[in-house]
Amino acid sequence: MTADAELLARRQAALAPGYQLFYDDPVHLVRGSGVWVEDAEGARLLDCYNNVPSVGHGHPRVVSALTTQAQRLNTHTRYLHETVVDLAERLGALLPGDLGVCFFVCTGTEANDLAVEIARVVTGRQGVVVSEHSYHGNSALVRLLSTDGYPAADRPPWLGVVEPPNTYRGPIRGADAGAPYADLVRVELERMAAREHAPAAWLVDTSWDSNGVLIAPDDYVERSARTVRGAGGLVIADEVQAGYCRLGVNFWGHENYRLVPDIVTLGKPMGAGHPVGAVVTTPAIAAAFAEQRSYFNTFGGNPVSAAVALAVLDVIEDEALLAHCADVGDHLGGGLLRLAERHDVIGNVQGSGLFWGLDLVTDRTTRDPIAYADARRLVTDCRQGGVLVGLTGRYSNVLKIRPPLVFERAHADHLLGVLDAALASFEPRGGGVGRTPGAEW
Amino acid sequence: MTADAELLARRQAALAPGYQLFYDDPVHLVRGSGVWVEDAEGARLLDCYNNVPSVGHGHPRVVSALTTQAQRLNTHTRYLHETVVDLAERLGALLPGDLGVCFFVCTGTEANDLAVEIARVVTGRQGVVVSEHSYHGNSALVRLLSTDGYPAADRPPWLGVVEPPNTYRGPIRGADAGAPYADLVRVELERMAAREHAPAAWLVDTSWDSNGVLIAPDDYVERSARTVRGAGGLVIADEVQAGYCRLGVNFWGHENYRLVPDIVTLGKPMGAGHPVGAVVTTPAIAAAFAEQRSYFNTFGGNPVSAAVALAVLDVIEDEALLAHCADVGDHLGGGLLRLAERHDVIGNVQGSGLFWGLDLVTDRTTRDPIAYADARRLVTDCRQGGVLVGLTGRYSNVLKIRPPLVFERAHADHLLGVLDAALASFEPRGGGVGRTPGAEW
Repeated sequence: MTADAELLARRQAALAPGYQLFYDDPVHLVRGSGVWVEDAEGARLLDCYNNVPSVGHGHPRVVSALTTQAQRLNTHTRYLHETVVDLAERLGALLPGDLGVCFFVCTGTEANDLAVEIARVVTGRQGVVVSEHSYHGNSALVRLLSTDGYPAADRPPWLGVVEPPNTYRGPIRGADAGAPYADLVRVELERMAAREHAPAAWLVDTSWDSNGVLIAPDDYVERSARTVRGAGGLVIADEVQAGYCRLGVNFWGHENYRLVPDIVTLGKPMGAGHPVGAVVTTPAIAAAFAEQRSYFNTFGGNPVSAAVALAVLDVIEDEALLAHCADVGDHLGGGLLRLAERHDVIGNVQGSGLFWGLDLVTDRTTRDPIAYADARRLVTDCRQGGVLVGLTGRYSNVLKIRPPLVFERAHADHLLGVLDAALASFEPRGGGVGRTPGAEW
Repeated sequence: MTADAELLARRQAALAPGYQLFYDDPVHLVRGSGVWVEDAEGARLLDCYNNVPSVGHGHPRVVSALTTQAQRLNTHTRYLHETVVDLAERLGALLPGDLGVCFFVCTGTEANDLAVEIARVVTGRQGVVVSEHSYHGNSALVRLLSTDGYPAADRPPWLGVVEPPNTYRGPIRGADAGAPYADLVRVELERMAAREHAPAAWLVDTSWDSNGVLIAPDDYVERSARTVRGAGGLVIADEVQAGYCRLGVNFWGHENYRLVPDIVTLGKPMGAGHPVGAVVTTPAIAAAFAEQRSYFNTFGGNPVSAAVALAVLDVIEDEALLAHCADVGDHLGGGLLRLAERHDVIGNVQGSGLFWGLDLVTDRTTRDPIAYADARRLVTDCRQGGVLVGLTGRYSNVLKIRPPLVFERAHADHLLGVLDAALASFEPRGGGVGRTPGAEW
């Protein structure tokens, strides 16, 4: 038995059977630096998938902040400490409107769980609207808001589900799709009302990551938010995927659509791997919530987590990563479009900044998604070529490219070369679309 | 405005109004080492309250493990990595029976949320039994299991609530209280059945932290577990407080009562401040859950969190902290009993190891709890004397002593001296028992 096979057997015995690994022949990573990771055999792989190490694997400033504060003190928010206050102020300064009152948590799941609770307490309603095939996390509550993970028949009556604004693959296509997609929100609110539920919130990821990385029609978000607010609901922007410069246009995804959310939730990229998340809202909403509820999270906002999250913001600012992400993103996007000219399997190139999806099809006219097994084989070929990418979308046919923000033009060229070769040798065999629920790539 | 007043004002603007600080004049901590913390003015305080820095503030081995792994690699469980497997095996080896299949999360809340979901999926029932005035965490689901935080009228119909086995203050007192307290579980299951709910689980913290730190009658846990299992429910041991040597008898609280739980949940002390938690169950339960559900937590079980959790276990083993905790705990317990001989306000000394509660009373015959304001003043006096302690219990009248596990006999003597002086000058003024819900000390 090889060392990896032995580790795999131990893992299968000690971790729950639900734990999944990427690739049939799993990648055993041992170190990482910037956009590069290295496996146990010393092979270097270009990381074009992971957004958690947002400012790059093992960024020295982040590691230094982590080490320094962990040596000095790690307690909780029931003692006075600067770092958590500094962090809250920094986030408030980055957010629009009067979004500036923070709750700190440890994961995006905890952030979304709390955000929905806040919306429910403040509005006095239970209803929540999310997208079809959404993913927002894994708690008992948030799991139900993640429509990609369980059968539609099991949806609770308070849940409203709308088609995401997929103008390439969705039911409404073309340039004027904003109003009709937003109208689906109005229709869904009517259906919820028929089930005797009114909306507490619309929870939206403005990158629509789990739908294959979408750019919505320009007016979709504003129109939908107006509809939800008109019905008395709040708008929660889940910025776990779209935030932190990812889309290369603004720091936050919601800014791309001129939306000022009522509540914003943060997770994955915020600590570059360290478990930290946040809920940010307005003074009025925070005050209304506090009238009925308190909230305390032991680890949330501890001095170490806060110091790490501050270091991530410092790096983003000092290394001008938003402009960098826009520049490299344009370069990468241009390269992907050129690949699409040569490879018919690429039905659509969608995304911006350092977040792209290639919607892969068997036929550009019918837009039928390629088989999951075929998509997996393409991703495996990329890995053999030294590049880590993933899959997303309702049919798991969208190649997902989401590297750390410090990705350079040369890295983009390297990725494009490997992808070009993988696509050139790609031979679809078919075998059914879609994937096991929860088997996120 | 002093620097602290300025920081406080900034904090009040940037953090949600629900955030609470210990003490009317908050403690502004800037560094910590072992059992000592230091405030911004350079005053050293003996930490007799915090269990999160379980092996001491800033333990060099924990900081070193954190730094080394953070420099090397931080990813997630969808790539193969040793540390998470090592950690799962170490936890399995420490746990009784065939408890050895792990799920990793970031907080005790996430652990309890997932554990209850597992119990519900596996049993096909919704009911959960907890103690009166319990605390298990803060997600939408787990908040409802924390009966200390919201009015009894708001309890969901699937929730069963039983009196904890408080033989000093509860409805049943004396040596033979085990069977009658366990009978309350049977009665509550009947009430749940009348509400058309059957038990998925009994969720129990075998230190009964939020009830004032209790030692249950020896047969209570076994009898209650038998009743719950007889009705088809699982037993979940919440070891966030009672585990990790805290009670100085066994590594886990449930071992003190010869209980082999079906599911164990871990949090606070596991990472000595780093946000890591776990759910451990049996292969059979894990397999039954996996038939219906998958679970993935991005940060849960990442290489850095796993390395930190392993370092904490190494320190506990290499520094023989279980035996240490038993030894210092006996010394401390003896000292507390001597204090009780001289100070009538101490109605009862309860606990073991490095977890003690002093149930403070206005009258030893009636056992009426002292006023919250009086208890707060006593804690504040201890702080003025250089010692951090807290409050717990249904009436917030129980002085809570729960120092890091590296607490020494000399530290115990120091605490006893400060406490003796505070108790000697203690003058109850009255003013009502109890506290604001959620205002945990």
